[in-house]
Amino acid sequence: MFFEGAEKKAEIQINIGQISLLKDIKDTFWQAMVTSCNAQIISSINNENCKAFLLSESSLFVWNDRLLILTCGETQLVNAIEYFIKKIGKDKIKQLTYQRKNEYFSHAQPSCFGDDIKLLSQYIKGNAYRFGELDGHHNFLFHYENNFIADPEDKTYEFLAYQINEQASNLLTSKGITALAIRDFLSINKILPDFIIDDYVFQPYGYSLNAIKADRYLTIHITPQADSSYISFESNMDLMAIAPLFIEILKPLSFDILSFNEHSFSNKTTLFKEANYLSKSLVQQTLPNGYHVNFANFILPQLEFTQPIQVHIEGENNAL
Amino acid sequence: MFFEGAEKKAEIQINIGQISLLKDIKDTFWQAMVTSCNAQIISSINNENCKAFLLSESSLFVWNDRLLILTCGETQLVNAIEYFIKKIGKDKIKQLTYQRKNEYFSHAQPSCFGDDIKLLSQYIKGNAYRFGELDGHHNFLFHYENNFIADPEDKTYEFLAYQINEQASNLLTSKGITALAIRDFLSINKILPDFIIDDYVFQPYGYSLNAIKADRYLTIHITPQADSSYISFESNMDLMAIAPLFIEILKPLSFDILSFNEHSFSNKTTLFKEANYLSKSLVQQTLPNGYHVNFANFILPQLEFTQPIQVHIEGENNAL
Repeated sequence: MFFEGAEKKAEIQINIGQISLLKDIKDTFWQAMVTSCNAQIISSINNENCKAFLLSESSLFVWNDRLLILTCGETQLVNAIEYFIKKIGKDKIKQLTYQRKNEYFSHAQPSCFGDDIKLLSQYIKGNAYRFGELDGHHNFLFHYENNFIADPEDKTYEFLAYQINEQASNLLTSKGITALAIRDFLSINKILPDFIIDDYVFQPYGYSLNAIKADRYLTIHITPQADSSYISFESNMDLMAIAPLFIEILKPLSFDILSFNEHSFSNKTTLFKEANYLSKSLVQQTLPNGYHVNFANFILPQLEFTQPIQVHIEGENNAL
Repeated sequence: MFFEGAEKKAEIQINIGQISLLKDIKDTFWQAMVTSCNAQIISSINNENCKAFLLSESSLFVWNDRLLILTCGETQLVNAIEYFIKKIGKDKIKQLTYQRKNEYFSHAQPSCFGDDIKLLSQYIKGNAYRFGELDGHHNFLFHYENNFIADPEDKTYEFLAYQINEQASNLLTSKGITALAIRDFLSINKILPDFIIDDYVFQPYGYSLNAIKADRYLTIHITPQADSSYISFESNMDLMAIAPLFIEILKPLSFDILSFNEHSFSNKTTLFKEANYLSKSLVQQTLPNGYHVNFANFILPQLEFTQPIQVHIEGENNAL
């Protein structure tokens, strides 16, 4: 069965003087917001800086001055953003980014990026961009800012691995695999010592992890099925430094890196070139608010012929 | 304005003893068949072997024993195939292939490949494959055969160019450009001496060409807009030999080659490697009827950063 792993993502920063999202907003609000986009809260962890909710489709992180939400599958994240704007008020929002990746079953989605930004534009006027080529991996990004100046130290990263190797896919789809076994496979304890971790193995397949330590976070979402495998990592830790370990473990045929405010992006891609990956796309832009955005897609060139995927005409279908 | 250039394609071969598609079927039949998928016949050319119709969305070729139809945009080609099967009869069909490429606005399509093959499977039982990676360029192929053995000399080729260079896009979208100017640009007279040619410049953009000589054909369809540019070449002449000339003219960032019964496929890709293109996908399979199918996607690695495409939120949008 195909599952659209590609996430929609939103980050909203607010005027901290007026309200604290962490202290002043109850869980019932987040429950209602998440429900409005057809996801559910499964569990949560928290520390003094952050509350992290594991969702039926991805994750929600809440800090005093901001939130980050990622949802995948056929969720309609834009509805949760509309809910937030209506309930909290546009005037409290300092900046908002809304992203969608290219999807593989976009005809199954309840809306497209164009629909979503038309809806958001009823409330907030922003700019929209496409990072990456139309016929390749790409990210649509809508951005609104309200007299906001980016903190150059506010760096975030996405590392998105596609077509992981067969052994990794087999392990991650093996019957009865535990969260602990997946943590071990991904070397989570080595990468995230002293983090509070919340993770969940979905049935029949799939895995999500939220990890927090002070104001640091990492979230991982795994769609492990062969032929449509996709693993996303999102963090405010330097994923470009950690990515080579994940590449070694997963051996993806292709991956994307998206970063905000990483000014050494180009230099840091050297590690991927050393691992024989080539850059298919390289895009950068500094947004009006000072956010410096980089997007790159890397591929492993193929030298051997493979066989096509047989598509099952009746019943369940994992290749369509 | 975005236009879905990616074609759906069908080839049907019939038992020549029972009926000649070229001699026994009137134009009104082809008109009705083409109308059933929401395309229209614009013009036609013919010789003793073949009749070639230029359509409002792509082309239809009819020989004594076979037809080839390509339609793009939001046409529903499967309806034309259903029309053919119902009117001509399943028993006269020796083999049928139905293809769809990955689309970029698949949410705007009236059906997906899965829907289409479910419909076809009500009439004919076949096999379906995906050539190419889900997260990259790929072709879905449905195949039905009725005691059919492929002629190893029955070779066909597709060359599909994506992201042509800026100069080529500018020329092909220039106001008032003539069919003759586009023929010159593509070196058509050099490549196709003595062919009967029928071509058409669409408004505001786009170009289609049908060319025939004896039983040889070439058809070209151009979607020239920057950011979504796509040019398809389909022929029973060796496009792998001609492709380097088109690559020199168009300098695409990426292209696909799809071939049927080209057993020297791998050797012939050397020319592309010499032009610095790398193979992102290499797929091959011999179908149950003996058709040997190859698919390859080549890319030009990027070394420099480019800027993202700005997406216009209101009104016409060429980047969504």
